[in-house]
Amino acid sequence: MQDYPLTVDRFLTHAAKWYGAREIVSATTDGSVVRSTYAHVHERANRLSGALASLGVGEGTRVATLAWNSLHHFELYFAVMGMGAVCHTLNPRLTAAQLAAMAVEADDMMLAVSADLLPLAEELMQLCPRLGHLLLLDSDGPATVDDLLEKAGTPYAWGRFDERAMAGLCYTSGTTGAPKGVPYTHRSNYLHTLRALGADVVALTARDSLLLAVPMFHANGWGLPFAAPAVGAKLVLPGRQLDGARLARLMEEEEVTVAVGVQTVWLGLLDHLERSGTTLPSLQRVIIGGSNCPEALLRRIEQGLGARVQTSWGMTELSPIGTMSPAGEPAVAGTSGRPAIGVDLKLTDQHGTALPEQRGVQGHLRVRGASVLDRYLGAESDALDEEGYFDTGDLALIDEAGNLVICGRSKDLIKSGGEWINPAEIEAIVGDHPTIRHVAVIGRSDPKWGERPLMVVERSSSGEASDLLALLKGRVADWWIPDRVIEVPAMPLATTGKIDKQRLRADYANAA
Amino acid sequence: MQDYPLTVDRFLTHAAKWYGAREIVSATTDGSVVRSTYAHVHERANRLSGALASLGVGEGTRVATLAWNSLHHFELYFAVMGMGAVCHTLNPRLTAAQLAAMAVEADDMMLAVSADLLPLAEELMQLCPRLGHLLLLDSDGPATVDDLLEKAGTPYAWGRFDERAMAGLCYTSGTTGAPKGVPYTHRSNYLHTLRALGADVVALTARDSLLLAVPMFHANGWGLPFAAPAVGAKLVLPGRQLDGARLARLMEEEEVTVAVGVQTVWLGLLDHLERSGTTLPSLQRVIIGGSNCPEALLRRIEQGLGARVQTSWGMTELSPIGTMSPAGEPAVAGTSGRPAIGVDLKLTDQHGTALPEQRGVQGHLRVRGASVLDRYLGAESDALDEEGYFDTGDLALIDEAGNLVICGRSKDLIKSGGEWINPAEIEAIVGDHPTIRHVAVIGRSDPKWGERPLMVVERSSSGEASDLLALLKGRVADWWIPDRVIEVPAMPLATTGKIDKQRLRADYANAA
Repeated sequence: MQDYPLTVDRFLTHAAKWYGAREIVSATTDGSVVRSTYAHVHERANRLSGALASLGVGEGTRVATLAWNSLHHFELYFAVMGMGAVCHTLNPRLTAAQLAAMAVEADDMMLAVSADLLPLAEELMQLCPRLGHLLLLDSDGPATVDDLLEKAGTPYAWGRFDERAMAGLCYTSGTTGAPKGVPYTHRSNYLHTLRALGADVVALTARDSLLLAVPMFHANGWGLPFAAPAVGAKLVLPGRQLDGARLARLMEEEEVTVAVGVQTVWLGLLDHLERSGTTLPSLQRVIIGGSNCPEALLRRIEQGLGARVQTSWGMTELSPIGTMSPAGEPAVAGTSGRPAIGVDLKLTDQHGTALPEQRGVQGHLRVRGASVLDRYLGAESDALDEEGYFDTGDLALIDEAGNLVICGRSKDLIKSGGEWINPAEIEAIVGDHPTIRHVAVIGRSDPKWGERPLMVVERSSSGEASDLLALLKGRVADWWIPDRVIEVPAMPLATTGKIDKQRLRADYANAA
Repeated sequence: MQDYPLTVDRFLTHAAKWYGAREIVSATTDGSVVRSTYAHVHERANRLSGALASLGVGEGTRVATLAWNSLHHFELYFAVMGMGAVCHTLNPRLTAAQLAAMAVEADDMMLAVSADLLPLAEELMQLCPRLGHLLLLDSDGPATVDDLLEKAGTPYAWGRFDERAMAGLCYTSGTTGAPKGVPYTHRSNYLHTLRALGADVVALTARDSLLLAVPMFHANGWGLPFAAPAVGAKLVLPGRQLDGARLARLMEEEEVTVAVGVQTVWLGLLDHLERSGTTLPSLQRVIIGGSNCPEALLRRIEQGLGARVQTSWGMTELSPIGTMSPAGEPAVAGTSGRPAIGVDLKLTDQHGTALPEQRGVQGHLRVRGASVLDRYLGAESDALDEEGYFDTGDLALIDEAGNLVICGRSKDLIKSGGEWINPAEIEAIVGDHPTIRHVAVIGRSDPKWGERPLMVVERSSSGEASDLLALLKGRVADWWIPDRVIEVPAMPLATTGKIDKQRLRADYANAA
């Protein structure tokens, strides 16, 4: 059979050839939208590769981006990866110092930036002299994509390299440890895309209009910037603002059928729809990730948005989709669906030995697959066990129907009097209470017990005070009940929407 | 990212782990059915690998099969491929001499055979002394799979080889030339499977019950013996008999949702349903291939079976799916759908130069992809052009919506007076006539014109004689109209359901 390297440029080339007139729509900060087509974007992205080459970008060159979900960011993805350079997506919610550490380790030589992030970019470039080139995205004038295309845009022969060449780079969110670089390859992205397209996974088709409300700067935007052109789905990029009113208008106008984002985004949209009395008749499915979705919330989203919910679980290290509830099945609340072909799951004890029973028992979750990390950027050895599995750091069980239930992070476990407390179980109970917006339980050092649990909560504005600890009585062991509750006005969140427990521990773990 | 070889054993291992209780149902010649599950079949197939190893089968060993779509054939697929041996599916409708030529070229050392094909197998083994082992499928007693499993079945560590290792072998049907061996690799089969699972392709899910009425002995049974376990779909194997009454009963009892076969199979089923007044309420989709499906037939199948029709085009050399009308769209009559990601099409002139316009113009169809042949078995060079494309031998055009229309075989073109006549266009007109079951137009050598068209027809039993040539007046050029019509009682068909034009040429091309 043919030697046909699995490189991601093929997705956009396919879209241009077979779905050339399908639209890509990009919302700008002022609320207007920019429209293009796959044929046009392909032509521009390809010539942009030629222009980048004229600036010294070649195979293996690292090009950083600091950008929202936008048309130019999409073009740059393909311009950079198509020529065999590496697209290193930086997270605009980090500080210049944090970004500089990543840019230095990654050896980035160029920075592409959304216009509104220019001040941060300039700060970053001062800290990182190797970043010699600046390219302005989604903007007019000098040093912009359009400017560069006009000056130096020439067709480029994409994809003439090994499929195991690095295509992208993304740092982990670092909520439970120092951020680490995850290098994606063309092969891993290509295979991740084919998996996502399955009728039992994202199930995207040429008739869909996809709203991508997960950031393209994190973990390939769930791989959907590849999946959409691979089937010719219309792609709707919401830009920086994800508030309910803007999303509702965009989804209505662009007749979005499938929308992807974290829970908080859908809660904001729900609030808006309820207030305004609007509906979204085109919407068929909402894919959520980021954390377990309890029954009440799942039903509220389904009813409020008039769409089927698909739950999911993923990680930066998994490219990122690990499991998903199938497009054609009702999601089971509190679970994250099943793995599609190509993702192998294994539950182990704390030493990494496979549990004899893989159903109904909680264990440490390990993963194997062609789109799963083997080695962090710059690491000296693989992060795999002898069977080739990567330790996710998650605690999980698999129910009898094969659905994955994430039970917490192994690093979040609290050791009290020699026994383990799982904060996630406490958080699930308290988090269900209507007055609570966010809850986190962390370990606080204790001279007698080693650690004791401490609960940090952010109440919703409508909420009244109530005895949160009383909720736990009889539902967890008495000694699991936190000694104390701290109310904060705003829970520290990572940019992925997850609670930043590292920050909480720094602030409160030694609190008197 | 991890080095995770794409080997087909993973499909069955995945099914056993996540869909262990899902059934595989196999119809036997006496009309009863045998039921098993993915967990059970996985365990057996794996131990069968161990047993085969005890007989000297190892990586690269060629194992031939001469079998219908059955449970044991399915088990053997995975037992053989899982251990890195090669599953060479032979076509039971060929003669022992034809099969021997293939078995010798393929260096087959073992033959697995459906019990009712034993006489043919014995004849073949006499012609091919290297075929030292015989294994009886779907049968009891000595030398059967069960017997071998009992004597020598031991667990085997599957899949520890390169993904580019050969997994299967199938000869082309040879309707337009000598049969040639097409070697499939694990990688090509794996990628073909992922493509087929797409929501815009076969779109198989864990909730489907799939009737596989295309032979597993040809072109991997359309790759569906891989796709079904990859998503945990129930697999229904109809065995030898594909008559309407049996299929209807099987489809009803097994609640088949998706059925795959050639047109003639569905016509037989339709006849039975119409006669018996039965319906198939579970059936959602019917995928047909083999030849273009005209409007009237397409609507008749859709209405008669109460299911959406998906048309398709494929070849042994393409593993075999090339294009398919998407699962969620109405098929456009006379077209074969679009290519999914991973199949590149190119229309060229007769010299292989790409046509400047790829839409609405007829050309020679070339194909590129990871599941497309590069070199026939035993050939000394690749069958590819300098861009890596394989010449399908088909004439085709692509309509404005991107649908492929197969317009005939380039080898079937008739050169008359220095100009080309395309028999497929004549056949399409005459084939639409209700009295005609099959029609073929071939070239007959002619001293004045070089060649002249000759029409061979098989009338349907209900049909009355009519002037077929008159139908063509005004619809094709006068000089395209065949000089003569020959009526045959039964059109010679290849086992794929295609008309065997090679045989027709041998019989009639020099007819006076």
